Amino acid sequence: MPYFDAASSAPLHPVARQALLASLDDGWADPARLYREGRRARMLLDAAREAAAEAVGCRADELVFTSSGTAAVHTGVAGALAGRRRVGHHLIVSAVEHSSVLHAADTHEAGGGTVTRMAVDRSGAVDPAGYAAALRQDTALACLQSANHEVGTVQPVAEVAEACRAAGVPLLVDAAQSLGWEPVEGDWSLLTASAHKWGGPAGVGLLAVRKGVRFAVQGPADERESGRAAGFENLPAIVAAAASLRAVRDEAAQEAVRLRELTERIRVRVPELVPDVEVVGDAVRRLPGIVTFSCLYVDGETLLHELDREGFSVSSGSSCTSSTLTPSHVLKAMGVLSEGNVRVSLPPGAAAEEVERFLEVLPGAVAAVREKLGAPTPTTVRHQDALVVDALGKLCPLPVIELAKVIGEVPVGGTVRVLADDEAARLDIPAWCEMRGQEYVGEEPADHGAAYVVRRVS
Amino acid sequence: MPYFDAASSAPLHPVARQALLASLDDGWADPARLYREGRRARMLLDAAREAAAEAVGCRADELVFTSSGTAAVHTGVAGALAGRRRVGHHLIVSAVEHSSVLHAADTHEAGGGTVTRMAVDRSGAVDPAGYAAALRQDTALACLQSANHEVGTVQPVAEVAEACRAAGVPLLVDAAQSLGWEPVEGDWSLLTASAHKWGGPAGVGLLAVRKGVRFAVQGPADERESGRAAGFENLPAIVAAAASLRAVRDEAAQEAVRLRELTERIRVRVPELVPDVEVVGDAVRRLPGIVTFSCLYVDGETLLHELDREGFSVSSGSSCTSSTLTPSHVLKAMGVLSEGNVRVSLPPGAAAEEVERFLEVLPGAVAAVREKLGAPTPTTVRHQDALVVDALGKLCPLPVIELAKVIGEVPVGGTVRVLADDEAARLDIPAWCEMRGQEYVGEEPADHGAAYVVRRVS
Repeated sequence: MPYFDAASSAPLHPVARQALLASLDDGWADPARLYREGRRARMLLDAAREAAAEAVGCRADELVFTSSGTAAVHTGVAGALAGRRRVGHHLIVSAVEHSSVLHAADTHEAGGGTVTRMAVDRSGAVDPAGYAAALRQDTALACLQSANHEVGTVQPVAEVAEACRAAGVPLLVDAAQSLGWEPVEGDWSLLTASAHKWGGPAGVGLLAVRKGVRFAVQGPADERESGRAAGFENLPAIVAAAASLRAVRDEAAQEAVRLRELTERIRVRVPELVPDVEVVGDAVRRLPGIVTFSCLYVDGETLLHELDREGFSVSSGSSCTSSTLTPSHVLKAMGVLSEGNVRVSLPPGAAAEEVERFLEVLPGAVAAVREKLGAPTPTTVRHQDALVVDALGKLCPLPVIELAKVIGEVPVGGTVRVLADDEAARLDIPAWCEMRGQEYVGEEPADHGAAYVVRRVS
Repeated sequence: MPYFDAASSAPLHPVARQALLASLDDGWADPARLYREGRRARMLLDAAREAAAEAVGCRADELVFTSSGTAAVHTGVAGALAGRRRVGHHLIVSAVEHSSVLHAADTHEAGGGTVTRMAVDRSGAVDPAGYAAALRQDTALACLQSANHEVGTVQPVAEVAEACRAAGVPLLVDAAQSLGWEPVEGDWSLLTASAHKWGGPAGVGLLAVRKGVRFAVQGPADERESGRAAGFENLPAIVAAAASLRAVRDEAAQEAVRLRELTERIRVRVPELVPDVEVVGDAVRRLPGIVTFSCLYVDGETLLHELDREGFSVSSGSSCTSSTLTPSHVLKAMGVLSEGNVRVSLPPGAAAEEVERFLEVLPGAVAAVREKLGAPTPTTVRHQDALVVDALGKLCPLPVIELAKVIGEVPVGGTVRVLADDEAARLDIPAWCEMRGQEYVGEEPADHGAAYVVRRVS
């Protein structure tokens, strides 16, 4: 059964499994102890740190193991901000960071700090010049992911790192999605990652802090992991994480080429096979295994269920809030369609035949959802200068479906006012206009919800 | 090779290993996902939570899995304090809590809170009446371990819980050392534990918060584990933790009797076999597997090495700072000898023959260390009314050894002044006096370090 959601969590790599099993026997004791079981555990821990540091591209004494990628981000952001609190309280993040970074930013803001959330372009990338311009005298920390977890777009980390270095501001790079593929380019100051994204076990994150970066751990600490990750070390999992990072890196160059071909095939074929689809994310500067597209007139959750029934495990919307299926903050920041969103993220080893079968199955799945929702088909045109569509109380994608049904009923230059109270309409109606070449006039307040005005152009 | 340090970390229970292996295959996906791998992971997580809650004695929706016992304590203390910040900022802990609790208390104090550290008696137990008297109008939280991790003394949790309940103050019980043996008695409000202490894997802690207890998570959170433990769930380890908790509980009643006999044998035999030894901790109200004793004129680290060479893995001093071998805060609070401290903590299944061999080996190991350090043997007595021993710059146990060498040289009623600058002398010289029936007169300031005055009584 094809699992195409590696960006959420990858199945355990065989090397990780092997290393985990071996170190369950040898690595359960406390590495702080002086007796032989403790010394053996300490040796395993030291070796794992050396291996992970080599893969990250830092010194072993710059790297600690945390209990998750999220913990690494939370510790890293808080520690770097506190270490530079005399400089100021300004934090910069991109608007498309992983939720762990955004949550840390929210906490900073709630504590009296200021946060700049850098906008991204339609591909999901920040503009390095814009990022550089946002650096201030009182900027304590800047954050930028190495690549986006929802659309796969690679960020201009090296350029941003250079700007940060010039301004004397440390840059924290969340490398969760890319570290299994390659080291992060550029002169970063802090780096975080998560083992279960590269086929390591859950329960292991990495936090690297370059020597010379001011860092003050917040909250209670102990003497483990240089005082940066309190609590008994999860040693067998750490050993497995380091071993599998080395293993996936050995295979990365070759596998990246193969997966890139497969995702390119999806990028090209999906718009040919399914009408009214927008493939999102940068077409070139992107991770090998991720491709994301949105389908007009489709409800993401229903489409996921259809695909699951066909045996395909994919993700929709924000990868961290899919259980609630609120519109993704990433797609929102990019200004692209969020409805009917599907993220395909291929694990290493994904078979070409499975991708082909996905392409076979997808058109029918989308069509089934659209039929269920009553999506528009061409109708006879009755000309009226202005129409009002009442979609109050209807959840997306229904407001867009209603809009699409009537746009042909007004003459070119005429307008449709869509009354809607589902928040996602604010994103999806302008996105529909962009895809359809219609003019989005704007939003007007209304008794309930809002009125979205669209002018027919073609 | 006998491993007698189960209180630090127990070897993986066979059931834990089995459950871990099985869930590596079935439980690597994100339990928040809608597809089958995610649903399977969610089912495993729910079942683990049910099993753990049953063992704890709480509702499943009151229990979350954290990344370690330490993380559970840090989250629990901070969340409970913040939840009751309108009541006040007073925190009570016992002086012999695990370092994770004490670190959390230090953080609270550094943030402007007040902390009462409850004294313990010579057995290591708090006095329930004294604890009740410390509860104030502005007490936000009280903490008490179920049993001490260094000396095994069981705390009067039920009585303290009753007093807390009467005062309307939530009680957090750190049950790390006892949960594998039995549920915590009494009407506690919050409970924490750590899986690797009962033979589960590292990387899993428990935090139970009773319904109705005000709780406000501090720092960045996400939607996982009821918002109380951010980051991707360490599912295979969680499943293994819950399965092994159930397994050790099934064996607990029988195994407790057996281990209690073995530790009782050590309690009785060690003072018979080794001169100048103090067995510490409550003789009756204690954990089945832990026994702790201190040897006069012995350096703990050297003794550990001697025992390690003989094949025995034991611990010394505070279990969380053994790598630095500073005097244990627990022994200090109890007012007992800290030098030459050895904690034997038997894992379930420890063999009686191994315990016998330990008893055979110990006297020689202690004697070897004493000989190396030049510990006192009876000398001819030259009477002088007062003597000064200059032990400046000498680390414990040398100051006590010097004292013991000369005490016979003053007449009964005469005094010895020991000049010492090692901090441990402050604890060990009074403890030596207590053990030897000599009078500890007191401490006087000196140019360097302090002068400890001892009067010969017998």
